[in-house]
Amino acid sequence: MEIKPVAYFRSPLPEKFGTPRQAGLAPSVPGEVRLAEGMAPEVLDGLEGFDRIWLIWGFSLNKGEGSPKVRPPRLGGNRRVGVFATRSPYRPNPLGLSTVKVVSVDVAKGIIHVLGADLVDGTPIYDIKPYIPYADSHPDAGAGFVDDNGWEPLEVVIPDSVSRDAKLKEEDITALRELLSLDPRPQYQDDPSREYGLSYKKINVRFRVEGRTLTVTSIDR
Amino acid sequence: MEIKPVAYFRSPLPEKFGTPRQAGLAPSVPGEVRLAEGMAPEVLDGLEGFDRIWLIWGFSLNKGEGSPKVRPPRLGGNRRVGVFATRSPYRPNPLGLSTVKVVSVDVAKGIIHVLGADLVDGTPIYDIKPYIPYADSHPDAGAGFVDDNGWEPLEVVIPDSVSRDAKLKEEDITALRELLSLDPRPQYQDDPSREYGLSYKKINVRFRVEGRTLTVTSIDR
Repeated sequence: MEIKPVAYFRSPLPEKFGTPRQAGLAPSVPGEVRLAEGMAPEVLDGLEGFDRIWLIWGFSLNKGEGSPKVRPPRLGGNRRVGVFATRSPYRPNPLGLSTVKVVSVDVAKGIIHVLGADLVDGTPIYDIKPYIPYADSHPDAGAGFVDDNGWEPLEVVIPDSVSRDAKLKEEDITALRELLSLDPRPQYQDDPSREYGLSYKKINVRFRVEGRTLTVTSIDR
Repeated sequence: MEIKPVAYFRSPLPEKFGTPRQAGLAPSVPGEVRLAEGMAPEVLDGLEGFDRIWLIWGFSLNKGEGSPKVRPPRLGGNRRVGVFATRSPYRPNPLGLSTVKVVSVDVAKGIIHVLGADLVDGTPIYDIKPYIPYADSHPDAGAGFVDDNGWEPLEVVIPDSVSRDAKLKEEDITALRELLSLDPRPQYQDDPSREYGLSYKKINVRFRVEGRTLTVTSIDR
């Protein structure tokens, strides 16, 4: 089946590094679903009554199908499980599934303002559906190795000297704290002397991680 | 993007008539997700630890894109809303999204036994993902016109004379009662003299509806 983008995602996150692994993990990160050219804006009529929507989107940065088994980060990269038992981006059809919070819908402009996405800037979106709790919400569903391997967010330290010079808006600091607490480092890396850089909007945030504490070393525009 | 079926659905429901409008509405209806030829069965390894999965599937019976606005059945067919504010099958990319309960996983045979699907027999499936409550479950999300327009199931009457002759298994009766209580009739039809027929496995169930009571008139093999 041939599917075409119905919309594209605008995100403050221009690259995969730093983008959350699942929707909702960084609930303050804003984004926009913008209808693709040629889509009639009235496709969004009535959506403003819903608190949440589903996005079915494409892992556009990945090439190739990957293998039948993958190593989920939640298992520390040590155990291989079948790709359909994971949300891995390397799957037979590279489709992603995320629910995001609706902030507002601008039908005339064909834009949905949302919060909490795990989509990189520019991601193609293939479908938008309303979130319907009676069909979609199952809070008590057991979730295999996801349940058995919890994780704790990192403590994020932004020294006064760094934040003072950066002059960020309060909402950007909140979003950055959420993103950094998710530990954007690649698996297996645990070198406290190594410095990493995360891009957010036009900002570059540099940081180090020692133990469970992440310290921001600089914020540049 | 070109996507290919990774699996096909086996359902006791051979046609759209009688198939639930959403997943979970008929929780006792069984079904099987069978991997497509060429898929390595180990893609299912580890899935047995999850209570629920997502299926992303194709509305294979529908042709054409439909229009930007549709009349959801929940609004009695009277009001048109944007297609992305509905779960209508007539959408720009004909993708369906359903979560179903996992009963068991037969990795060797490449089969997932499930309950509660809203998929017709033979439906192509494009992705299978584990259900992860922390990302997917939002029980309190407001759902616009779906919240405002509740519906009540029909009362289903199967006269003793009819059920005695049919010699159905208990589980089939339970599933049929659920399916019939959802009122399979097309919108706008309310003719108590009209008889309808629902196919389930090799059974044909005939019924009439008067007011809020559905009465089964015959069950044939």
